Order: sequence, then structure tokens, then C-alpha cells
Amino acid sequence: MIKVGIIGATGYAGNELVRLLLGHKDAEIVWYGSRSYIDQKYADVYRNMFQLVDAVCMDDNMDELAKQVDVIFTATPQGLCASLVNEEILSNTKIVDLSADFRLKDVSIYEQWYKLEHKAPQYIDEAVYGLCEINRNQITKKTRIVANPGCYTTTSILTLYPMVKEGLIDPDTIIIDAKSGTSGAGRGAKVANLFCEVNESMKAYGVGTHRHTPEIEEQLGYACGRNDLKLIFTPHLVPMNRGILVTAYANLAKDVTYEEVKAVYDKYYKEETFVRVLERDVCPETRWVEGSNFVDIGFKIEPRTHRLIMMGALDNLVKGAAGQAVQNMNLLFGLPETEGLMAAPMFP
Amino acid sequence: MIKVGIIGATGYAGNELVRLLLGHKDAEIVWYGSRSYIDQKYADVYRNMFQLVDAVCMDDNMDELAKQVDVIFTATPQGLCASLVNEEILSNTKIVDLSADFRLKDVSIYEQWYKLEHKAPQYIDEAVYGLCEINRNQITKKTRIVANPGCYTTTSILTLYPMVKEGLIDPDTIIIDAKSGTSGAGRGAKVANLFCEVNESMKAYGVGTHRHTPEIEEQLGYACGRNDLKLIFTPHLVPMNRGILVTAYANLAKDVTYEEVKAVYDKYYKEETFVRVLERDVCPETRWVEGSNFVDIGFKIEPRTHRLIMMGALDNLVKGAAGQAVQNMNLLFGLPETEGLMAAPMFP
Amino acid sequence: MIKVGIIGATGYAGNELVRLLLGHKDAEIVWYGSRSYIDQKYADVYRNMFQLVDAVCMDDNMDELAKQVDVIFTATPQGLCASLVNEEILSNTKIVDLSADFRLKDVSIYEQWYKLEHKAPQYIDEAVYGLCEINRNQITKKTRIVANPGCYTTTSILTLYPMVKEGLIDPDTIIIDAKSGTSGAGRGAKVANLFCEVNESMKAYGVGTHRHTPEIEEQLGYACGRNDLKLIFTPHLVPMNRGILVTAYANLAKDVTYEEVKAVYDKYYKEETFVRVLERDVCPETRWVEGSNFVDIGFKIEPRTHRLIMMGALDNLVKGAAGQAVQNMNLLFGLPETEGLMAAPMFP
Amino acid sequence: MIKVGIIGATGYAGNELVRLLLGHKDAEIVWYGSRSYIDQKYADVYRNMFQLVDAVCMDDNMDELAKQVDVIFTATPQGLCASLVNEEILSNTKIVDLSADFRLKDVSIYEQWYKLEHKAPQYIDEAVYGLCEINRNQITKKTRIVANPGCYTTTSILTLYPMVKEGLIDPDTIIIDAKSGTSGAGRGAKVANLFCEVNESMKAYGVGTHRHTPEIEEQLGYACGRNDLKLIFTPHLVPMNRGILVTAYANLAKDVTYEEVKAVYDKYYKEETFVRVLERDVCPETRWVEGSNFVDIGFKIEPRTHRLIMMGALDNLVKGAAGQAVQNMNLLFGLPETEGLMAAPMFP
Repeated sequence: MIKVGIIGATGYAGNELVRLLLGHKDAEIVWYGSRSYIDQKYADVYRNMFQLVDAVCMDDNMDELAKQVDVIFTATPQGLCASLVNEEILSNTKIVDLSADFRLKDVSIYEQWYKLEHKAPQYIDEAVYGLCEINRNQITKKTRIVANPGCYTTTSILTLYPMVKEGLIDPDTIIIDAKSGTSGAGRGAKVANLFCEVNESMKAYGVGTHRHTPEIEEQLGYACGRNDLKLIFTPHLVPMNRGILVTAYANLAKDVTYEEVKAVYDKYYKEETFVRVLERDVCPETRWVEGSNFVDIGFKIEPRTHRLIMMGALDNLVKGAAGQAVQNMNLLFGLPETEGLMAAPMFP
Repeated sequence: MIKVGIIGATGYAGNELVRLLLGHKDAEIVWYGSRSYIDQKYADVYRNMFQLVDAVCMDDNMDELAKQVDVIFTATPQGLCASLVNEEILSNTKIVDLSADFRLKDVSIYEQWYKLEHKAPQYIDEAVYGLCEINRNQITKKTRIVANPGCYTTTSILTLYPMVKEGLIDPDTIIIDAKSGTSGAGRGAKVANLFCEVNESMKAYGVGTHRHTPEIEEQLGYACGRNDLKLIFTPHLVPMNRGILVTAYANLAKDVTYEEVKAVYDKYYKEETFVRVLERDVCPETRWVEGSNFVDIGFKIEPRTHRLIMMGALDNLVKGAAGQAVQNMNLLFGLPETEGLMAAPMFP
Repeated sequence: MIKVGIIGATGYAGNELVRLLLGHKDAEIVWYGSRSYIDQKYADVYRNMFQLVDAVCMDDNMDELAKQVDVIFTATPQGLCASLVNEEILSNTKIVDLSADFRLKDVSIYEQWYKLEHKAPQYIDEAVYGLCEINRNQITKKTRIVANPGCYTTTSILTLYPMVKEGLIDPDTIIIDAKSGTSGAGRGAKVANLFCEVNESMKAYGVGTHRHTPEIEEQLGYACGRNDLKLIFTPHLVPMNRGILVTAYANLAKDVTYEEVKAVYDKYYKEETFVRVLERDVCPETRWVEGSNFVDIGFKIEPRTHRLIMMGALDNLVKGAAGQAVQNMNLLFGLPETEGLMAAPMFP
Repeated sequence: MIKVGIIGATGYAGNELVRLLLGHKDAEIVWYGSRSYIDQKYADVYRNMFQLVDAVCMDDNMDELAKQVDVIFTATPQGLCASLVNEEILSNTKIVDLSADFRLKDVSIYEQWYKLEHKAPQYIDEAVYGLCEINRNQITKKTRIVANPGCYTTTSILTLYPMVKEGLIDPDTIIIDAKSGTSGAGRGAKVANLFCEVNESMKAYGVGTHRHTPEIEEQLGYACGRNDLKLIFTPHLVPMNRGILVTAYANLAKDVTYEEVKAVYDKYYKEETFVRVLERDVCPETRWVEGSNFVDIGFKIEPRTHRLIMMGALDNLVKGAAGQAVQNMNLLFGLPETEGLMAAPMFP
């Protein structure tokens, strides 16, 4: 039984980790860390867990926690994990960091986009970018730090990766128009996230400045051997709880048929349990993946403008956060990758 | 492995049965019956099941189906199950009927409220009303027909039962004000259920005439030894997918303290896995049970008017339909009652 | 042109006042008071007003304001208006108070339910309870203070008033089950009102303790000549922006027919522009009054239990707050009561 | 007083026409045409109009109707207006067609995208494309037919027009990612538009094939003197009632500063009442225009990729349909263009 500690257990991603781990037969949560609710019963903060979780919230003392658990999930704001991690901790436990601290290999880009000094740059190289479908081989029992990808980035990269890698599209023309449910904004008490402010509305935000941009650029840059890839990423807020939909556009690099594009997607994803390449002319919809670890991908060739439209959908709290974190944990401990993650999407 | 057939697999309750049974380690669906989608791939109707269900929809030939399966779930409109069932079928298989056909013991009340002639009255007595927490002992390997309770009725009865049974409230004063998410209205293409008609609105419907009324009256009548119990049941439509909230009112039959009421609830539910009696002053909310088989119950003594306010919440598609049906199946086959039903509620 | 000042212009009710007054041909807003946004452009706080309102938010200096305007609307938390009002102010201007400060005639009840010392009890008697349909004659050019009724109370009282007044129901059996959209909770940054907390859920709150209870009791008590009337009022939160639906229950005091009940409602409301008594068997729905000053009322006799079910719906920000305030202003200044309030409900 | 007839009065756009015209001091509706609800009271179909509209629904006999009214609004599916219009009708009345029949000047493109034979091609040249801000001068008392633009097209064209017209962007690189509330899908009883299918989900649809594409291409083609302009237009369905948000992308044709782009927008829209160019870094949100005839526009230069991101938001039922139709009517009859259209947006 893997002993698990969660720092940031009272955020939405933290609660989703709890939900998934309660259904995981080889893991056991022994530490519910929360800065805001220390000493309160976890089930008083998240009443869905009433009679399922008896624990009381602990602090975020990672040094102490590391002695007690096999793996720590940090579902916290950027900066915290990097400020706490040290060699002693890593000698005792593994870390799956759901924040952005170890996702970007170029520390200057991190500091520029996040306006933060990185407190543990010495671990950036060691950390593995935990997009399992792409970096599976690097996530092993020897791995100490996994940088769990962001929700927008997971959707964007998985949707675009095969096309970029195989040169079907011109990477300099990529435009990603992304739409997210509101749980992605977190549980902080802000006017902008009140029901009446979000409901019955839609908006773009962080236009040209969203922090997931360089993460997508870096990963897709690896795919095409470019370290200067620049693309447009525009996130939007949607009045729904969960779900991310990405609509990505790029110029075709050559003439292709539906079958050729499909074959490339299948080459990368046919054996992947959690990536479902949809049938011809079927567009992904967030409702079909809700509550699950699946990513649905569809595409359409637009011959009039010689472009490719690629679409991806996932549940931002599962494959976009907690589910992928559990998937990484499974890999870290040599368990079947799908352990605890095979629940079917819930509809409606 | 229990072989399962579903008639009405393409309704919302049917799809929820599929979702739950895919996660049930001792059951296997071998027949996806659907009148509207015969010969279509099930996963084309419910794309959440893409790559999880390969089956094609079958018709609703219960005679044929009965030969192939151990249990049939009928998630169909009222009248269908009664019109199909016969001795041959029951000699081959068990039936868990999610419709209203076998819920009411008094056939004349059925015919009066449902405006339908009952086609199989000979099985009414035999059928067990499958509210597991109350009738568990009658749901055994020998049972052939289980009448799975309605969604409103499950919430209402479980919320009121201990109070009525123990005489804490005057049953002639019961008023049930119920609120339901829209999945309870089914997947039929009706203007009244369009997004723009339901969203941003709330209404009562079926005021004084809703068919779940006599079902609640009959069951609570058993609890207090009355066959003429009459109460008010008013359902409302709420702009959300899932969830039923019941707010029930009744005059107190005697002076009681919080502790006394709590003790009565605990007497009935403390050992029940799926009924969670909340802590003092905590009101049930549908979000805390979503996707799960739990019923949350709270109450408040109103001393100024000497009344009791009782509240219950559940997910209408799980404990109010498919989850309870699986719970009944577990009892019918001697499995642990909670098998396949222990997923934690999903929030948000 | 009536000069208007608004204190609390940056709350939801305040913004609705602005919206309605911009369309009022005899009123002009000259003071947008806001404690939180002083010196900010109003249209930066509520961008719907971009290019429609150029003003900058002022403070809540009622003494100064009173010298500049003909009427002050206080759309503020309880306690503020009572703490600011004085004879000097009232000699200069009229006040329509949208808070609870002057609604209850019994100051001890105010202090008990609101847990506040009343700072201006000397004005309670003078203040008129501004439910225009009932107290129209008291709202005149001589009136200095109007206590604008609460949203739940307006719905509840208008729905029940004729039945109580004419003795059709037993007032000691009244149970009001009310449902409200989330704008009623205000624009404060609270976790409980975040989109993901409210969306896809429903709950009761303030059970047995909600502050609108004594206000309804007092007003209905006047209708039946009782100063000790007690009733149950249970509010619920609904995942929609606007709208209140009240479902009220009471024992019939005598045998009545549909026509008799209808005749009583018509007696009181046939000439009322803003109260629409619906046709037989039609239930009010909040969507049909959205954005308007209408109250829709329906009812159903429940002969099995000899009770009456009464239903009312309105838009909490219009007839439940800002619209009613404008209606009161019209009366205060001798304008046609419907001036600026005749916009048809907006659907969907 | 302008006498108005509406064909298709029981669709969502039809109901919005009724709402707006009830508040228009120079127009009077004398014919509520509806194929589905003939002889039913209009207010029974749209209960928001209870006690506001007494009329009964008429058929869609345009010949008869033309004799009675000054202007006919056809809020009907494509094909109907073209199949009914004739010289006799046009000699008696004006037509504002809210369908697509007269929007495209190239009849072959109409027939190709709409899969319909055009029944009245002789009137295509005469019809004026009723985007008032661009074609105002052509909409006069002499005009007989106005082709009222589509909702997506109005948003897209107004957002892009100044940039295309002034050559700031390369028109061959335009990508329009559009998001719409569900009222745009109409009131037809389809499973895909049920509450539970739309709520809590987001999807693209009509990818590469949506019929508003050639309309945008044609109009922007005029702006840049190109009759072969091709662009990508991708609509998405959003779980909200009203609102369209367009996020458009294009390569910059030259180096520009924020001030230069702003100046171009201002050149075209500074004097326009209904187009609000937002302040720097402010993104349009659909909530800020709900219920109004405003279009909000914002933009962001993305220097890293040398592209321009342009955003526009409007209420699809107002500026995207009925409001623009009334605006056209005002121009047709020489009234102030804003008559009946100055209601402030309603929030929340």
C-alpha cells in the first residue's frame, strides 16, 4: 500500500485527488495538508467526503510529511513546492508536483512568465515532465520528481503533438483557442469567480500572457526540434464546472487526406488507454469525458484554406490534474498505469 | 459473473446503469436494449462510452433476453415491463424494474394515477418494493421481481420514514416540497426540456397530481400502519443535471429535542452505508452526493410552530435509479450490498 | 427631473437601480455611492454601463448627498441606513431604504433577528412599508421614508395576502418553501457563492432562522388581525442568476372552489399592473418574469388533504428590489406608478 | 405608428422582436405569424407576454399580411421568405428578412451552402445587407428588402471590418473562433438541445461547413476588394442562453502599435452608438451586453507571433437578430436609429 500525502488537499484538484485515491486499491492517504483549514475535519470542508474521510487537515510541513509517506502530491500555487523541496525530502519520498514549478526546463522563462524567483532550480533538470503518453519511459521507480502538466497544456499538447512531431502542420502557424470550465480558476474567494459573474457569460482572459503558453511551446518545440517555437494560446472561461475544450488551428505543411492524418494520430494513440481518437467528423465534447481520465481528440481538414483544425477535450480536474497525477504515481511505483483511473465518464 | 440485460439502455437511467455496471466486478452487460436506436452502436448514442462499450443496441425482446441473462433491468416508461413479463421469463431470469409498474400494491391506484391498465397484476404481490434500507430482508436470491423505487420517492421515504415509523410527527400533516435536476425528465425531445427553457428558471409542476405521490403515501402508510395516508407532494424542476432535494414539513407529534430526533434517525441509519445523517445544523446539498449512491439527511426542529423540517438529498440517477437498482441486484445475488457502488461523490 | 442618489450602487441591486433609472424619463442619477469602489469609474465596476454611465463612485456621505438629491436609495447591508439617517437629511430628501432597517415595526424583533441595535428607532413608525399593491395609499408626496420590502417577502406576501385577508386559509398552518437565484446572495467574495459551489446544486439555508420570516409574519398578521402569527419560511439557493419562486401551503379554512379562490385573487389584483394571476392550472415560472417588475401568481386546491397550494414568482432584483424601489419613487413623486417599469420580461 | 407583421413570431428571435417592439413607441405589432401555433394565444406560447399581448397566432400568409402592414419581419428558417415574396407584396410593404435568403449576393454560393434552390433570385441584388454600421446609407425609405445579418456574422464582421478595410491584417490568415449561447440553436425539439445535453458541456460544431462562413467572407471581401476571400470560421455551443463571443486571429500586415489599432477602430466606431470599443486590455464578455443592442470589441497585439487577436461580443437575439432588425426598421422609416433600442444591458 502506497502511503500518500497531499499538500493543498482542500483545493479543487486536491479534493479530486482524494476522490480518485479513495478508489485506488493500492494507495492510502495519510496526510491531508491544507494551509487554510488546519485542524478542521476534511469532511467539513468537502462534505462529499462525509463518512468517507475521517481525517483532520494538517499543515504543509513537507519535511515531516516526507518521513511518513511514499509520495507527496503538491496541489498548491506555483512557488510553494520549489520553496519547500530539499535533498532530505527527496531521499525519503517522491514528489508529484501539480503546480508549475518544475514544468519548464528554462528557469528564465519560468521566472519571466510567473514573476517569481525559482527557489530550487537545481532540481529542474531532474524533474520529469509527467505527460505520461509522451514521457512514459522517463517516469520510473527511480524518478524522484514529476512535474505534473497543466490542464490546458495537457489538452493542447496531446491534441497537437502527433501533427507537430510528424511534420503535418507548420508549427509557426499554431493558434490554440482554449475553453475551460470554472473549476480551473480554483476555490479562492474572488468576485470574478462568483456564480453570478461567471454564469451566462463567456470571456477570453490572459490574452497573449497566459502562463501555460511557454509550457506548450517548450513541449511542442521538443516534438519538432525547435527551441524557439512561438504560438498563440488564448484561454476562455466557460460557465460550467469541469472540462477543457481546445480548438487548435495550423497551416498544413503538405497535402494530406483524412486517412493520412488519422493514421498519424493512431500511430501515437492507438495503444493509449486514455486518449480516444474519435471517428470521422465527430467533434470532442467535454460532457463525454467528465469525471474520467480520458482525452478525446478529433480533427477536420479545411481544404479551402489548407489548414488543419484539431480539437481535444478532457476533464481539467482528472486528466488535467489529479487523474494524471495518479497516472504518474502508478508509473512511479510500477503499478498498472490505469489503476484507479478506469471509471467511465459520467453523463449527464 | 452475473449476466445482465438492460431494456431502455439509451435513456439517462439506462446509461447510468451502464456506467455503474462497467465498474462492477461481478456483473457483465450482454444486452443493450433500446427501442429507438436498434442496430446502432451504443457508443454512438452515448459517446462517453466510446472504446468502453463495443455493443450494438438490441431490441426489447424480453422473452429472448430472459434466456441469456441472469437479471434484466427495465429502465423504460411505465407499462412496458408489465406488458412483457410472463412466467416463462421469470423462470429464466430476475427482473429489476426501474419503472412504476410494480411499485404500488393497490392496482386501482396505479391505474388511476398512471391512466393505464395494468397488464400483469398477478405479479404485483410477488414484487418486492426495492428500497433496500427498509425492505432488505425481502430482497433475496428467491426474489424474482424487484420494483425499484422512484427518485422522488426514495428521497422522500428515506427522509421521512424513521419519523413516521416512530411517531415523532403527525403523518396527516406531511408536506413534501421536492426539487429535481432535469435528467429526471428523461431524454425525450420536448420543447419544455430544451436548454433555454429550463436554464435560468424554476417552476413547480404536476402540483397535486404527480404520480410519485401515492407511492410515498403507500410506503409511509406501512410505516405508521395506515392505509389511507394522504400527503402533499410538490415537485419542482431545477436548472441542473442531477440531484434531488426534498424539504419535508410535518407537525411534531410530541415535544422532542434535537438529540431525540437524531437518535431516531441513527437507530435506522447508523449502520446504513448509503444513508448519511448529517451533523447538527448541516443541511443536505445535492452537490455533495453527485455521482454517488449516498442519501444525505438533515433536519431542524422549528419550535415556534412546533413542526419538524426534514431534508434529504440524493443523485436521482444513482440512488434514485441506477445505483439503487444495482444495490438491489447485489442483494438478489447475495453479493455485498455495496459492490460497485462505493465511488465517492464527485465535486464540483 | 427627479435627482437621485444611490448608496450601495455597486451591489447587484444597486446596479439594477442604475439600469432601471437609465430608462426612466423623469429621473436622473447624480450620485453613485459605493464604499468599496470610491473614486473608480462606475462603468469599470459594471461594464454593462460602459459609455452609458460616465460617473465616478462617490462615498456614502448621506448628509452631503441629501443636499443634492430629491431621493436617496440605500441598497446597503442592514444597519447602515438607520445609522446615517437624521432629521436634517429627512428635511432635505426622501429615502427609499432597500435594506431591512425600517421594515419591521417591532424594534425588538428587528434586534432579535438581525442581531443589531437599531440606531434610529424614532423613524420606524413614520416609515411606510413599501409594498405598493397593499400600502399604496400611504406612499405619497408627504412620505419621507419608505422601507422597501425584501425579495422573499414581496413574493411571499403578495402570494398569500388575499387568501389570509379573506380568511380562505388558516394562517397558523402556513408553510412557505422559497427558492431564489444566486444574485440574492449579493456580490461579496465568499467561497459559498463561487460558481463551482452553487452550480449544479441546490440546498436549503437559514432553516428556521431566516430574517425575512418576521417580516412576512408581521405583514400577514396585519392582514388577518393577528400580532402573533407564526409561520415557517424556508429559503433555498438555486443555480440561476435571478428569480424567486415561492411555493406556499396552508390548510383551507373552508370548502372552496377554483372559481372562489380565483375571484378573491382577482378582487385584489385584477387592477394591478404588476401582479399577474395566471390562468387555471398554470404554475408561475421565474423565466417568465425575468428582467421585469411582474409577479406571477398561481394556485391549486388540493382536495385530498384540504389544503391550498399557492405559488408566486418574480425577479428578485426587480420587483424584489430595484423595480419596487422605483415603483415607490414614482408614488412618492406623484408620477404614474408604472413609469420606467413596463419593460416586458426577457426570455430566454 | 408603423404597423408590423412578424412571420415566425414564436421562435426565439420572434419573441425577442415582440419584446423590443412592445417597447418601441412608433411601432405596433398587428400580426403574430406562426406555423406551429396557429389560433393559439401568443401569450400561451410565451408566457412572459401574459397580459402584455392579447393576440392569437396567425398563419404565414404573406400576401394577406402585406396588405395590412408597413413592414414584415420574417424570423423563419431559410427558404421561406424567398418562396413567399413577390412583386405584389413588395409594392405593399417592406420586408426585413432575418433568415439567410437575401444575405449572399452570389446565388450559387447560397445554393451550395444551404443545399436549397433559391426561389426568388431576382430580388437578391435589390436586397440590402442590413449591417447598419456599414451599410447605413443604403437602408432608406426607398429600400424594400433588408437582409438582416446572422448573429455570428454580425459579431465577426464588426470585429474584423476596420482591420480588414484599413489593411492592418492579412485577410488570408483570418481565423474566427466563435462561441454562442444556445438560443442560437432555436426552439425546435431536438435531443441535442435538451438541457442535460448542453449544460456542463462545450463543443465545436459545423467545423469547416457552417453557413455563416460565406456571409462573412463576402462582406469582408468587400472591405478589402477581394471576391475570393477564404477564412476559417468555427462555431461552438456554450451552456448559456444568450451571447456570442468571437475570438478572431490574423497575421498583422505591418508593424502597429496599440494606439494605431485603436485609432482605426475609433475611426469606424467612435460615432456608433451600438459599437463599444473597450479600453486597453479589456476583453469583451457576453454578460456585459446581455439584453442590449451593443457590440463590445477589444483587441490585443501579440508581438511574439506578429498577430492580432480581435474579440467581439453581442447578444445573439438582440444585435444578432431582433435588435438589428428593429435598427433596420428605424432606418427604413426615417426614425432615429436607436429608437426602442437603448435599454442598458442587464446584469447579472
